[in-house]
Amino acid sequence: MQTQLVSIRIPTIEVGQHIGETITVSGWLHSWREMGGLSFLVLRDAWGTIQAVAETEAETQPLRAQTAGMESVISITGHVVAMPQAPGGVELHELSVEVISPVSEPPIVPINKPQIKAQLGTMLDHAVVTNRHPTRRAILRLGAGAMRAFRAVLDAQGFTEIQTPKIVAAATESGANVFPVDYFGRPAYLAQSPQLYKQIMVGVFERVYEVGPVFRAEPHDSTRHLNEYVSLDMEMGFIANHFTVMAVLRDVLAGIMETFQSRHAADLQLLKVQLPEVLPEIPHIHFTEAQELIYRLSGVDERREPDLSAHGERCLGEWAKKEYGSDFLYVVGYPTHKRAFYTYPDPERPEYSYAFDLLFRGLELVSGSQRLHRYEDYVATLEARGLPREPFEGYLEAFRYGIPPHGGFAIGLERLLMQLTGVPNVRLATTFPRDLTRLTP
Amino acid sequence: MQTQLVSIRIPTIEVGQHIGETITVSGWLHSWREMGGLSFLVLRDAWGTIQAVAETEAETQPLRAQTAGMESVISITGHVVAMPQAPGGVELHELSVEVISPVSEPPIVPINKPQIKAQLGTMLDHAVVTNRHPTRRAILRLGAGAMRAFRAVLDAQGFTEIQTPKIVAAATESGANVFPVDYFGRPAYLAQSPQLYKQIMVGVFERVYEVGPVFRAEPHDSTRHLNEYVSLDMEMGFIANHFTVMAVLRDVLAGIMETFQSRHAADLQLLKVQLPEVLPEIPHIHFTEAQELIYRLSGVDERREPDLSAHGERCLGEWAKKEYGSDFLYVVGYPTHKRAFYTYPDPERPEYSYAFDLLFRGLELVSGSQRLHRYEDYVATLEARGLPREPFEGYLEAFRYGIPPHGGFAIGLERLLMQLTGVPNVRLATTFPRDLTRLTP
Repeated sequence: MQTQLVSIRIPTIEVGQHIGETITVSGWLHSWREMGGLSFLVLRDAWGTIQAVAETEAETQPLRAQTAGMESVISITGHVVAMPQAPGGVELHELSVEVISPVSEPPIVPINKPQIKAQLGTMLDHAVVTNRHPTRRAILRLGAGAMRAFRAVLDAQGFTEIQTPKIVAAATESGANVFPVDYFGRPAYLAQSPQLYKQIMVGVFERVYEVGPVFRAEPHDSTRHLNEYVSLDMEMGFIANHFTVMAVLRDVLAGIMETFQSRHAADLQLLKVQLPEVLPEIPHIHFTEAQELIYRLSGVDERREPDLSAHGERCLGEWAKKEYGSDFLYVVGYPTHKRAFYTYPDPERPEYSYAFDLLFRGLELVSGSQRLHRYEDYVATLEARGLPREPFEGYLEAFRYGIPPHGGFAIGLERLLMQLTGVPNVRLATTFPRDLTRLTP
Repeated sequence: MQTQLVSIRIPTIEVGQHIGETITVSGWLHSWREMGGLSFLVLRDAWGTIQAVAETEAETQPLRAQTAGMESVISITGHVVAMPQAPGGVELHELSVEVISPVSEPPIVPINKPQIKAQLGTMLDHAVVTNRHPTRRAILRLGAGAMRAFRAVLDAQGFTEIQTPKIVAAATESGANVFPVDYFGRPAYLAQSPQLYKQIMVGVFERVYEVGPVFRAEPHDSTRHLNEYVSLDMEMGFIANHFTVMAVLRDVLAGIMETFQSRHAADLQLLKVQLPEVLPEIPHIHFTEAQELIYRLSGVDERREPDLSAHGERCLGEWAKKEYGSDFLYVVGYPTHKRAFYTYPDPERPEYSYAFDLLFRGLELVSGSQRLHRYEDYVATLEARGLPREPFEGYLEAFRYGIPPHGGFAIGLERLLMQLTGVPNVRLATTFPRDLTRLTP
């Protein structure tokens, strides 16, 4: 019986196309109110909700008989009626209710209120259920949309998708902040990024991308750090310089916003997100000029600092908005010694690099750079930085056998979602966060 | 200079559209032969190769000046000439060669022969360079195509992409064969599969998929096992039974083959791959009938075994080809006690399950099943199997709060590529394999 019912179910968002018909919806019992002798049931499925109104006790009898309360999995068969004042403009009448998985106790965190009211810790402890809340789903669905758009833009530009090892013999960029793995009794680590592998693969496919987990054993407890997150990585060969990479990043951001606009309108509305416009060319400013500008605009003098402060970035963000009407701003030319060893120095003043950060509304969102591509340059840089050559042997082999000028960037998916949706904590931009203390669920 | 040259480069596969023009190609010096006073250079880029013919020493002088040999990154500007006997039908004449990254020593494993001649170990030790070989690239590119097709088919069927944690507090399915991770001093493990998380996420999105790494600490040294591989996972709710899942798997396979056909014709040709046809309905046979059939066809009696032997699977594969003209065959109803604890038993004979394997040309390629969906069933099963409840607390919470009938499957990407392309070792179906002894490159 049950199997027949569910096979002909209509998604809630399509119910409006069936006015006058008798149809079946299946999903979770989202809410149940009694008012003026009527029962108002709201059923939630993956796509949305639909209201069903019972005029008789008999219609809701199957729920009572099985003490099926909130979150019970049910099917409702009913007559579709246009009802302008109902949410979504339609409701179901003359109900026949079937209980598929009864739930008698309500979840600890109620998920049928417009906002989740629980403390962050409680909410994350019960993420298994709280992820069902419409606002949580909307954020996670935007994440899926961002991954899809990232891939689509790069596919269209001749990139090839790769999947590189996550268990590695040596730390990717430095010895610090890696998670040790016991690999059949041998020491190993979780990859902090696909950086070295994606550069190697430029030698194979020229243009590559990877969407996958990265692992950072940073002992921070902040609202902006996760110890495992999803990285959208790309790397491309035969570039002129870092501006070639920045132009592709611009296209990726534009693709993500277009995808959100065209496929996630309801999610954006629910989350009250105002999408930024991505200009045909994102403005850029050199690191040294940025420091001067911060001094001139705010009086704060950080011109001798090797990096920008949070204050400085905010200041630049406001300036870019006023000057160019842009929510995005590239800062280029960060000091070479502050960036990773593979960063390409500016040939005209090698103390500054061909690295860039993308600021989004005054917050750093993406980092990237042109990389070194000559074997001798790597040997010299590793030595100058006091880094051993041996752990990088495989990596160096790629450069010994010819790698073109190349560069790339990495977008932290959760950071992107956080900054776009305005959730106060990056933990809320992922399904099941991993942090200093949290390993479950 | 260099930056201008590379910015107007033409991909090798598009050179044929520029006959009579002077164009620039960039890539790697793939081969260089002298014959009858002429120099034949072959340049390889991400897409293919092009032959360039020098009539004078002056034309190849930049290579000699920088002792630039095989794998040097170069640009060649030349006049495009139609030449039916040349590979690809065109070649470049009147050359101007620019060296971008000179390579003076040839790689240990030559990659300009039709086949790689090295031993497997040597080849994998130098995967950083051997992955540049056209046959290696073709296999890896098929992998990218398979991921793309998997996502496209499921996107079109209303699935949502998820990314779930790879560092977990407890083993996914059993305590064995997990890699231990030191998580800030706490014991943790690498996820053996996204199984539990994808089931939980059925409660959120109903239909989900994930493409990501899985980690198996199996101490096998076989041609068919990797300790880290890419798993194409899906899970869907509101199914009638395992046949609903099997129908989606059929669509995924058809989508993969269509993608290969339409976008990877050159890769298939190079690898001499004959694509299987995916019938509108893949035939199926029950486990018990399969055992009877194996006995009847081959005389080998494995009717009291709890699983099929390699011989039995081969026998069934031949039978399916003869009987149905199908390269694929579903075996359904495997004994319940041999499958994972979450497998749904056949209500009519609970010693058999709603699990299935997909055989491809007589080899197991995919496993899947309907899963238990009632909280009480999980509690009872864990107890009956002597498994503790505590490590599964978060997982069980999902079922306490309503999960519909659901099921799913997982495809091992490298296994799929191996069986399709006929490479003799699964290590050859991945970029940088991880096995019992191999942690680099």
